[in-house]
Amino acid sequence: MLAAPRIDGLQYANWSEPIFRQMREGGLDAVHVTITYHETFRETVLVIERWNRWFERYPELIFQGRTAADVVLARETGRTAIFFGSQNPSCIEDDIGLVEVLHTLGLRFMQLTYNNQSLLAAGCYEAEDSGLTRMGRAVVREMNRVGLVVDMSHSAERSTLDAIEHSTRPITISHANPASWHAARRNKSDTVLKALAESGGMLGFSVYPHHLKDGSACTLESFCEMIARTADLMGPERLGIGTDLCQDQPDSIVEWMRSGRWTKDVDFGEGSAAAPGFPPMPDWFSDNRDFDRIEEGLARTGLAKSEVEGIMGGNWLRFFGQSFGPRA
Amino acid sequence: MLAAPRIDGLQYANWSEPIFRQMREGGLDAVHVTITYHETFRETVLVIERWNRWFERYPELIFQGRTAADVVLARETGRTAIFFGSQNPSCIEDDIGLVEVLHTLGLRFMQLTYNNQSLLAAGCYEAEDSGLTRMGRAVVREMNRVGLVVDMSHSAERSTLDAIEHSTRPITISHANPASWHAARRNKSDTVLKALAESGGMLGFSVYPHHLKDGSACTLESFCEMIARTADLMGPERLGIGTDLCQDQPDSIVEWMRSGRWTKDVDFGEGSAAAPGFPPMPDWFSDNRDFDRIEEGLARTGLAKSEVEGIMGGNWLRFFGQSFGPRA
Repeated sequence: MLAAPRIDGLQYANWSEPIFRQMREGGLDAVHVTITYHETFRETVLVIERWNRWFERYPELIFQGRTAADVVLARETGRTAIFFGSQNPSCIEDDIGLVEVLHTLGLRFMQLTYNNQSLLAAGCYEAEDSGLTRMGRAVVREMNRVGLVVDMSHSAERSTLDAIEHSTRPITISHANPASWHAARRNKSDTVLKALAESGGMLGFSVYPHHLKDGSACTLESFCEMIARTADLMGPERLGIGTDLCQDQPDSIVEWMRSGRWTKDVDFGEGSAAAPGFPPMPDWFSDNRDFDRIEEGLARTGLAKSEVEGIMGGNWLRFFGQSFGPRA
Repeated sequence: MLAAPRIDGLQYANWSEPIFRQMREGGLDAVHVTITYHETFRETVLVIERWNRWFERYPELIFQGRTAADVVLARETGRTAIFFGSQNPSCIEDDIGLVEVLHTLGLRFMQLTYNNQSLLAAGCYEAEDSGLTRMGRAVVREMNRVGLVVDMSHSAERSTLDAIEHSTRPITISHANPASWHAARRNKSDTVLKALAESGGMLGFSVYPHHLKDGSACTLESFCEMIARTADLMGPERLGIGTDLCQDQPDSIVEWMRSGRWTKDVDFGEGSAAAPGFPPMPDWFSDNRDFDRIEEGLARTGLAKSEVEGIMGGNWLRFFGQSFGPRA
C-alpha cells in the first residue's frame, strides 16, 4: 500500500533538475508552484512555455497536474504533479475572459492581490482595505464557475473576509501562519482563520522565515506546536503545508516580487533596508527533502496519525478534488 | 443505431445562434472552424474567449471538441463539436512554444501559410516558392509532437510537397479542389493530391465558388462527379468535405483575410476589382442545412454507400482519431 499523499501548497523555487529530483526524494506527490506575480498574460504564457519544456525534458520526474487524479497518478508512477498558480491577478490583466483561458492552460490557484491594491481586492500592505471590487466580485464568480481556486495569502483582512463570503466554493490561504503566533503583516487573524475553516477553506502553513516566530531561528517544535494549536482553532482537516520555499533564487527575485513594475523605488516588503534579500531558512527545512522532519515533528505534538497525514497532504488532495473543475 | 458521422472540415462563418442551430438541422456532428488568420497570439486568445462565451451560452447546441471521442459525444447528445483551426501561423508569432500552448487551448489545425510567404513556408500567391523554412521544419516537428494538424490549403506547391515529406504524421488540405477540374491558384495539382493520399493525408472539398468550375453557377452534379473522379485518383478514404462556408460575413472579412496588415494596398486574392467581395454561393449549398444534398449527389455518382458515408464524415473522424494528440 502506498503511504499517505504528500503535497506542498506553495513553492517558488529557481526550478532545475536537482530540485525536481529533491521533490521525489522528499516524497512530494504534488506541488503548487507559483508561475507568475506581476507578469502580463503574454509574459505568463512565456513562463508556461518554460514549464512545458521542463515537462518534456524530465517526464520521469514531473508532469503537469490538472486534477486530483493526477496526484494519484504521480504517486503510482513515482513522480511529482506540478499545479500552476499565480500570486497576483496581473496575468488576467483587465480581461475576465482570461480566467477560463488560464484555467485551460492549467492555472489552478490565483491570488486576488499581492500586497497591493489590485483590480480585484486590497493587499495586506495597503493602508486602506475597501474589500472586493466590482471586478473582484465578477472574477470570483468566474473563478468559481471554472474551478480556479481563490487564494488570499497576500490579501488584507476585509478583502479576505469578503472573498470567503462572496465565493460560493471554499477558498485558500495557501502560505501563511496565524498572527496570534507571530504578528507579521502576512500572517492571519483568528477571525480570518475561523471564517476560512467554517467555509471549508484550507490554510497552508508557511516556512518562510518572515512568517515564523523568531524568524530563521524558529524551532521545529515551535512550528509544529503552532500547527497543533491551529488544529484546535480550525479543525485538523482544514490544514496543509504551503512552505513558500524559494530555493536557489537570487535576491533579484524577491525584489521583483515586492516591487514588480508598480514603483520606481525599492519596496522592502517583509524585509528591510538592512536585510533586503531572502532570509536564511530555518535549519530544519532547507529543501524538499526535509518534509519527513515536519511529519515527525507533528507526530510529537500528539496529533493523531490520521491528522498528521491529512496535514501532510491528504487534506490538500481532498480540496484539490473539490476545487479544480466545474462543480460536480 | 446512429447514422454515419457528418463532419465539415472547414468553415469561417459569422457565428451566431441561428448558425449553430442550422449545424444541428444539417446533422453536423463536428465542424473545424477557423478562429484566426493574421491575428497575433493575444488577438487569437480574444477570439478563443469569444468562443468560450458561445460554449457557455449555447451548451445545448455546441461544445469545444478536443478529441475524436468528442465527435461521438456530440452525436450521442445531439450537439455539434467545434474544433479550432488557424489559417495562418501568425498566432504563433515567432515563438515555437506557442504551438503547444495553442494546442492546449484546443487548436487542432494550423495552416503553415495563407497565400503569402510566412515564417514557415510559401503561400500559393507568391511568385517564388522555396519550400519549408528552417523554422517551418522545426514547427512541423513540434506540431507532429503535440498533435496539431498541418494544413496546406493556401500553400504553394513545393512547400506543400515539402510538408507532406517532412511531416511524420499525415497532413491535410482541408478546403480545396483538384486543379484538373478547375484551374484556380488555390486548387491542387494531381502531383500534390497523389502525394497527399499516399502519405495518409486528407483532402476536404471546398464549396467556395472561386474553387468551383463555373464558380457560383457550378452544378451539384459537376461537384459530385469531380469528387468521384478524385476518389479514383486518391482513394475514397482520403476524402472529406471542407466547405469553406463563410456564411453571413460582411465583405470587410474577406478584405481582412486577403490583406491582413501585410499591405496598405487592397489585395483581391481570388476576387477582382470588379468583384471584390464574397461571391454568391451555388444554389445547392447556402448553409449547414444543405449537406443532405451533397450526400444525395454523391450517391448518384455510383460511389458505394460506405464510400459516401466516409466522405461525409467517417474519414475525417478516423483522421481526427489519429491526429489530435501525441502519437499513441
